[in-house]
Amino acid sequence: MAKYLALTNDRVTEEHLHDLITSIGGLGGDVEVRQSGARLLLIAEALAAEGLEAALTACEHVRTVVDADLPHPLAGPVADGGRTVVRVAGVAFGAGRPVLIAGPCSAENPQVLLETAKSVRDAGAAMLRVGMFKPRTSPYSFHGLGREGIALLSGVRDEIGLPVVTEVMSVRDIDLVAGVADMVQVGARNMQNYSLLVELGRAGVPVLLKRGLAATVSEWLNAAEYLLANGASDVVLCERGIRTFDRTTRFTLDLNAVPVVKERSHLPVIVDPSHGTGVARYVGPMSAAALAAGSDGLIIEVHPDPAVALSDGDQSLDFDEFAALATRLRRICSALGTGLEPAPGLAPARP
Amino acid sequence: MAKYLALTNDRVTEEHLHDLITSIGGLGGDVEVRQSGARLLLIAEALAAEGLEAALTACEHVRTVVDADLPHPLAGPVADGGRTVVRVAGVAFGAGRPVLIAGPCSAENPQVLLETAKSVRDAGAAMLRVGMFKPRTSPYSFHGLGREGIALLSGVRDEIGLPVVTEVMSVRDIDLVAGVADMVQVGARNMQNYSLLVELGRAGVPVLLKRGLAATVSEWLNAAEYLLANGASDVVLCERGIRTFDRTTRFTLDLNAVPVVKERSHLPVIVDPSHGTGVARYVGPMSAAALAAGSDGLIIEVHPDPAVALSDGDQSLDFDEFAALATRLRRICSALGTGLEPAPGLAPARP
Amino acid sequence: MAKYLALTNDRVTEEHLHDLITSIGGLGGDVEVRQSGARLLLIAEALAAEGLEAALTACEHVRTVVDADLPHPLAGPVADGGRTVVRVAGVAFGAGRPVLIAGPCSAENPQVLLETAKSVRDAGAAMLRVGMFKPRTSPYSFHGLGREGIALLSGVRDEIGLPVVTEVMSVRDIDLVAGVADMVQVGARNMQNYSLLVELGRAGVPVLLKRGLAATVSEWLNAAEYLLANGASDVVLCERGIRTFDRTTRFTLDLNAVPVVKERSHLPVIVDPSHGTGVARYVGPMSAAALAAGSDGLIIEVHPDPAVALSDGDQSLDFDEFAALATRLRRICSALGTGLEPAPGLAPARP
Amino acid sequence: MAKYLALTNDRVTEEHLHDLITSIGGLGGDVEVRQSGARLLLIAEALAAEGLEAALTACEHVRTVVDADLPHPLAGPVADGGRTVVRVAGVAFGAGRPVLIAGPCSAENPQVLLETAKSVRDAGAAMLRVGMFKPRTSPYSFHGLGREGIALLSGVRDEIGLPVVTEVMSVRDIDLVAGVADMVQVGARNMQNYSLLVELGRAGVPVLLKRGLAATVSEWLNAAEYLLANGASDVVLCERGIRTFDRTTRFTLDLNAVPVVKERSHLPVIVDPSHGTGVARYVGPMSAAALAAGSDGLIIEVHPDPAVALSDGDQSLDFDEFAALATRLRRICSALGTGLEPAPGLAPARP
Repeated sequence: MAKYLALTNDRVTEEHLHDLITSIGGLGGDVEVRQSGARLLLIAEALAAEGLEAALTACEHVRTVVDADLPHPLAGPVADGGRTVVRVAGVAFGAGRPVLIAGPCSAENPQVLLETAKSVRDAGAAMLRVGMFKPRTSPYSFHGLGREGIALLSGVRDEIGLPVVTEVMSVRDIDLVAGVADMVQVGARNMQNYSLLVELGRAGVPVLLKRGLAATVSEWLNAAEYLLANGASDVVLCERGIRTFDRTTRFTLDLNAVPVVKERSHLPVIVDPSHGTGVARYVGPMSAAALAAGSDGLIIEVHPDPAVALSDGDQSLDFDEFAALATRLRRICSALGTGLEPAPGLAPARP
Repeated sequence: MAKYLALTNDRVTEEHLHDLITSIGGLGGDVEVRQSGARLLLIAEALAAEGLEAALTACEHVRTVVDADLPHPLAGPVADGGRTVVRVAGVAFGAGRPVLIAGPCSAENPQVLLETAKSVRDAGAAMLRVGMFKPRTSPYSFHGLGREGIALLSGVRDEIGLPVVTEVMSVRDIDLVAGVADMVQVGARNMQNYSLLVELGRAGVPVLLKRGLAATVSEWLNAAEYLLANGASDVVLCERGIRTFDRTTRFTLDLNAVPVVKERSHLPVIVDPSHGTGVARYVGPMSAAALAAGSDGLIIEVHPDPAVALSDGDQSLDFDEFAALATRLRRICSALGTGLEPAPGLAPARP
Repeated sequence: MAKYLALTNDRVTEEHLHDLITSIGGLGGDVEVRQSGARLLLIAEALAAEGLEAALTACEHVRTVVDADLPHPLAGPVADGGRTVVRVAGVAFGAGRPVLIAGPCSAENPQVLLETAKSVRDAGAAMLRVGMFKPRTSPYSFHGLGREGIALLSGVRDEIGLPVVTEVMSVRDIDLVAGVADMVQVGARNMQNYSLLVELGRAGVPVLLKRGLAATVSEWLNAAEYLLANGASDVVLCERGIRTFDRTTRFTLDLNAVPVVKERSHLPVIVDPSHGTGVARYVGPMSAAALAAGSDGLIIEVHPDPAVALSDGDQSLDFDEFAALATRLRRICSALGTGLEPAPGLAPARP
Repeated sequence: MAKYLALTNDRVTEEHLHDLITSIGGLGGDVEVRQSGARLLLIAEALAAEGLEAALTACEHVRTVVDADLPHPLAGPVADGGRTVVRVAGVAFGAGRPVLIAGPCSAENPQVLLETAKSVRDAGAAMLRVGMFKPRTSPYSFHGLGREGIALLSGVRDEIGLPVVTEVMSVRDIDLVAGVADMVQVGARNMQNYSLLVELGRAGVPVLLKRGLAATVSEWLNAAEYLLANGASDVVLCERGIRTFDRTTRFTLDLNAVPVVKERSHLPVIVDPSHGTGVARYVGPMSAAALAAGSDGLIIEVHPDPAVALSDGDQSLDFDEFAALATRLRRICSALGTGLEPAPGLAPARP
């Protein structure tokens, strides 16, 4: 029994669909239809593989046809080896120039946030990362400003002129966060929170999908598959360290994942050396290594005074360290025949 | 600075609270108040540890006072080494007699569910496990009957007369599931889905908290802490295999966790040898081992015909295998000076 | 191309061998001959599988014929599912009654050794474990009495009347140790020290082969294969904890290995809960669990005063704890329909 | 009680030693003396730390004095943060220019060895790696040419003019191998084969010490400590992949180890991306990443026709791939402000 997935465009009608189902029915086959954002996802089965593929491809509103028995059909490699460029508010992931994302672990207060945002922008970051909802091991730790911080985020974005990525931890916050952030992060601990993935996919927002602490590359790509199958079209993967027996570093940043993902998926992949090592002194060497390994970007924690940060101070760079690192990374990019992705020139804040 | 947690009973009033805050204010201290189910959780700080503890203990509506700087204050060991007995619809976890929970991985259809439920009840199970929402690696796998299955669950529970535990994967399903199930399971992949833990805690429903694939015992107890801090009072832990380098078994069932949890927590702990090994042939030996290690119970997958099960067939016992295992476990319990927890004699179905 | 291994008996002659090689040559095949202790190991290849197997089986001095393409042909399961009983100075491993081995981590001095040996014998141990060469992470830690301790070992063995197992770490010490000990232990760190395995195999001494810290079951059985292919006939496996992300216990004692080895090998397997957990308080529950899982024995560290032991005090039981545990284990054995293997009644010391 | 280690030079006499022991005796202290190659290792204890340190430093023949309570006193960081340059037959490890070592996994025959050696020399390798004794999981796999290959090694070294590193697996082969090779490799499976480390240390030969599959950085440095404490002065560390839950790559090459070792040890550290990933396609990106992370060199497997190699073909580069990689690595070195270490210009072969 052959099985194919097909994604339509958003102009497909009941009538088109009816025709397609009839034609596949004529092959003795069957079609399951799921909404995938504004498009439809068709899961089609028939005995005759060639006839089935032809019927799907023949439909003018079908955009993607892929063998459903592949391990992660929509997230896997595409036929011609091409790679997807994901654009987030003018920033291109996977187009050859690594994207430098930086910012504080959590927005402790407006002053720290604004000061840090300015500093990383001036040093060359193309995008801002800010934690509003912070997953913490203990229920009594600081969990970020939460919903109260969202307005703050919007103001900083407009003032600094950089697109913003921030984490969402609950389906109940998706609308709020997606209304303000340019990209939504799924944290490592939620990589297999399937209900979150499904609802984020449906929301159609760009997603930065962190690898789970104990996720194989295949499971990680299957998490991306949940997003893509439910309507997401802009997904960037982020390696952030896996859990191994060695606790010399907080996690084991797995740079092998970079060439592996490039082979097994068409999606861009970036690296988080701050969480991945948990030690500020190792962020520099591992950032350089990530770019040399082919990473499409970096996401780095910066804080005006790491020693007093409310969370993750041990792994944050201060302003000078970050600026020096950015300079060094530019030199490596140039040896690799490219440069860092520039800041996008956001439209000015609404008057 | 000393820091204590205190849980009130559910009769505490604004006035009591005001008095307490005033008294701690008199010590130069401060109190943060959080709702924890029908009770309040007080997080109190002051310079003078003894005075602070005394002030909290003196309040007649305060039930539990515990040092907040312990790694997981509410889930950790209690002062006198006592162990909590969790009662779920008449079934006692942690009272000395291991609880045998069994049932199909997922409820594929009413017939299979009912037949399996009868069989495990007759073999000696005290509680029924049924999967309605199934977390699966691929978005295209069978995900259980979902919301449609909930009515089915209610019917089977009444007909068979065993309490039921089933997994919930989304905050949006908590009310629905908690209205039917006697106990709600948090799966391994959601162990650090903090928004789910917070809302389950608030719902006050008994929770079976599975250990995450890469969770240390301390992180697992902190997940329990989220439940307890938000209002849960009935939490049972479940070891279900961790992810290690060895893939001879699907996961590495970590029985060491049983004596470790008994030392580091007052909560009951049971073992899932079906998911923990992923191989039906190993379920018997590992079940016996779990009881010998001191486990407060077992949760085992049973299916009328494992070879055709829609999910997890490799690890399910058939009816005869389960009945033989139950007999063997009774013999081991008896060598350990106890017996299996009996079925509770549920009130008959509503007429 | 079919490939078979064949082990001869020790009466095979050049002439027999010549006939066999000629007969396989007649099939267009080829034979590589290796010494395996007093026997020969034949590695035979030919296109015709059936003819090859028949030719080997037809030779009256061939004892074992096994498909060489199996993962570990000599250590793997035997055709009829039978299990090998390994006898060491009258103690039977794998014959149904678990063997209790106990003793001090290292022989610090004659007094401690003798006192401990008497105590564990009286409590029911069938065999004595003593460390003379101790592998230690630091070159400056106490490394045991070494070669000086070997004479001591001999004396204690005769006085107590229990067979002795002790570790050997260098090929240079094999003769010395094998001249005194009844069984030689290969430690976890040397499990893939192939030159040690080869020479121990050739020495023909009974071997207790510990599992490496990061060894899959398959690699462990391949280490046993090295012993068996080089002439060893008495090999007992020992699970002693693997290295995982969780450091709550020193290692993660992997009891799953017990049913797995029973399925994948004909060799007996025992468990070391002392090194496997690193915590004396967990030795009791994990010992009971190991027997319930089907372990053919236990090896447990005992010390008169663990708090002052020169090595591994944290994981040693004192005399009373060991005696109480032995009683408890006897009860579990009885529930499993068996009993502990008794001490062998060694011939008295030479006059 | 203060405890210091001191290494003497090789001109220390009985008399010097006697004076030193007397002087430390005068402080109420004690000295243990061990041979460490041509030098002595003194392990000195006394109550007065300052007096003890002064007494040791005062002795004109003492070269190194270090606190014995550090985790690995001789392998750990030196006081001024300086790094040791290890010179092997004219090749400098740790002097700023990364060393490129390349060659076949195992020397299958003279032709393949010679051809490969010429090709990697011409592409820019500064040193040759050749496997003569190959540790293999199965006793029936190809284990290299062994002792027969040693003469071959000597011939190739002279003809090609590159220094050679090869593995030794048994103490019985140390003299033979050290007589021909410029550097001896300790493989991952033997990292805690302490008797091998002790005898290699005594032999005084330069050692390439691979990290064990499950070794923490601290255990790895302690293995180096065994070498240094027994007389080795030229030790280079080699990260070669650790064992984790993820089997997408054969091992998880842990580049974090590079900055970690640079902080915790004065020894040079290189990286083996061939064994570390097990996949030829990933060797290029991970080599580049290793240099960017600060690695002092690379060791890479090359074979004229990887598809037919007797061992490790999957991870070997062919000649063209290696030459292209060397070019790319030179470009990255140049961005990092350095270049690859050149071949040393060995003295020509004996006439």
